[in-house]
Amino acid sequence: MNAAILKGRLSGVGTGPGDPELLTLKAVRAIGEADVIAFFCKKGGTGNGRAIVEAHIRPGTLELPLVYPVTTETHKDGADYRGPISDFFDRSAEDIAACLDAGKNVVVLSEGDPLFYGSYMHLHVRLQNRYRAEVVAGVTAMSGCWSMTGLPLVQGDDILSVLPGTLSEEKLVERLADTDGAVIMKVGRNLPKIRRALASVGKLSGALYVERGTMSNGAAQKLEERDESPAPYFSIVLVPGWSTRPGEAG
Amino acid sequence: MNAAILKGRLSGVGTGPGDPELLTLKAVRAIGEADVIAFFCKKGGTGNGRAIVEAHIRPGTLELPLVYPVTTETHKDGADYRGPISDFFDRSAEDIAACLDAGKNVVVLSEGDPLFYGSYMHLHVRLQNRYRAEVVAGVTAMSGCWSMTGLPLVQGDDILSVLPGTLSEEKLVERLADTDGAVIMKVGRNLPKIRRALASVGKLSGALYVERGTMSNGAAQKLEERDESPAPYFSIVLVPGWSTRPGEAG
Ligand SMILES: C[S@@+](CC[C@H](N)C(=O)[O-])C[C@H]1O[C@@H](n2cnc3c(N)ncnc32)[C@H](O)[C@@H]1O
Ligand SMILES: C[S@@+](CC[C@H](N)C(=O)[O-])C[C@H]1O[C@@H](n2cnc3c(N)ncnc32)[C@H](O)[C@@H]1O
Repeated sequence: MNAAILKGRLSGVGTGPGDPELLTLKAVRAIGEADVIAFFCKKGGTGNGRAIVEAHIRPGTLELPLVYPVTTETHKDGADYRGPISDFFDRSAEDIAACLDAGKNVVVLSEGDPLFYGSYMHLHVRLQNRYRAEVVAGVTAMSGCWSMTGLPLVQGDDILSVLPGTLSEEKLVERLADTDGAVIMKVGRNLPKIRRALASVGKLSGALYVERGTMSNGAAQKLEERDESPAPYFSIVLVPGWSTRPGEAG
Repeated sequence: MNAAILKGRLSGVGTGPGDPELLTLKAVRAIGEADVIAFFCKKGGTGNGRAIVEAHIRPGTLELPLVYPVTTETHKDGADYRGPISDFFDRSAEDIAACLDAGKNVVVLSEGDPLFYGSYMHLHVRLQNRYRAEVVAGVTAMSGCWSMTGLPLVQGDDILSVLPGTLSEEKLVERLADTDGAVIMKVGRNLPKIRRALASVGKLSGALYVERGTMSNGAAQKLEERDESPAPYFSIVLVPGWSTRPGEAG
């Protein structure tokens, strides 16, 4: 075998929502076998995904932090953000490609599930045709949050809508009126808007607010009872489609 | 401590989509600590969830199969099904309650994630106020399927709609037209209807069909290329919300 042509393998690995025990066996194995662990983080931070998997990283494993160029959510809505973030993903992909070319297996950590609103997909699409690439599915934040609260979201013929809290209030109202269950991601400073939208379609009273779900400092409460201060990055709103139903089988 | 009042704990445990390595560490621990493992199955079957976790069941653990009263999907749509299935959940809950009263810890296996279109929720709502009850989140079938195919479903401000294939064709058309990404569950004999609905909104060419995702005999192909024979129970359709977008950051 010619070592020069033996390139490394890329793995996008879901870390689950926060509880380190919600890692899959497959994630633990991939992390233990990795030559390089890459993870997204903010400037000055060490990355939440890395903290979740800490116990499983072999001593001596190389670490490759991928530091986001901008940190505030507001910027992401503007066209200004597109260029820099796209360049950032290009550069990150090339840094990873250099490791893969050197024959190293690279794990990219991704909070929750990698292909569900995750940054990993931007690397995957850039590298999947040039290298062996696999994705290790993870427990999503929404599953972690509804499990923590014991709230059944959808069953039978229910429709579930996953909505980013960044949608306009009008759009949120329209979507929330016309679904059974709903999950609202990216809550943050969108909290007051989300609450108004739910109230206007009569679904506020059943909605739960969960922050840092499954993490050691996680908490859940009725959205109605949550104060108006901005929510942390790791927060979500759950709207059950089911409990209000008269019949229960289906 | 009085053994007579020390009741057992109920755990609804997600087994993930099929690959036994997609079990979480928490699921493995709960299964290993269980006195009783309960699982849903069809008459004469042994249960897919049980097969996934087989390697982690301690010798001597009691097993409690919960055998569904009816097996064909057609019946589930009719009112005839409601009574028997509700009675079945009542009886299953009482069988589990008897174990919990005897101080045994009971794990109920649930394919994928327990509270996401799973039967476990019917037991949870019947027992959660009488016993300590916890839910161990699992990797959903949809996450397993899109990870297996490497297909990014949603990102940024995308909306994801999870639709049961049992919806009418009209309703499917309406929903598919008006979303970014979509996941269609419960495909089975609904396959031709699902394909027509996707074609009529111009989204057939991007859709993937996955059967037995992440299982050893799993397969994926373009939905366009799938023949018209009925799909197995474990099959799903994935419609990416993202790849068709001009910009890619967000
Ligand atoms: C960019 S998305 C990533 C989603 C992730 N890939 C998944 O599979 O769930 C980030 C959003 O997920 C939600 N989130 C992630 N972890 C969470 C947690 N532990 N508790 C509550 N919400 C969480 C928040 O709404 C946050 O804005
Ligand atoms: C009653 S729902 C249970 C969903 C499960 N609780 C979850 O978290 O994904 C059953 C449906 O899930 C889908 N499904 C479950 N496992 C699957 C697999 N391995 N591959 C494809 N589809 C699957 C099929 O659409 C099936 O009709």
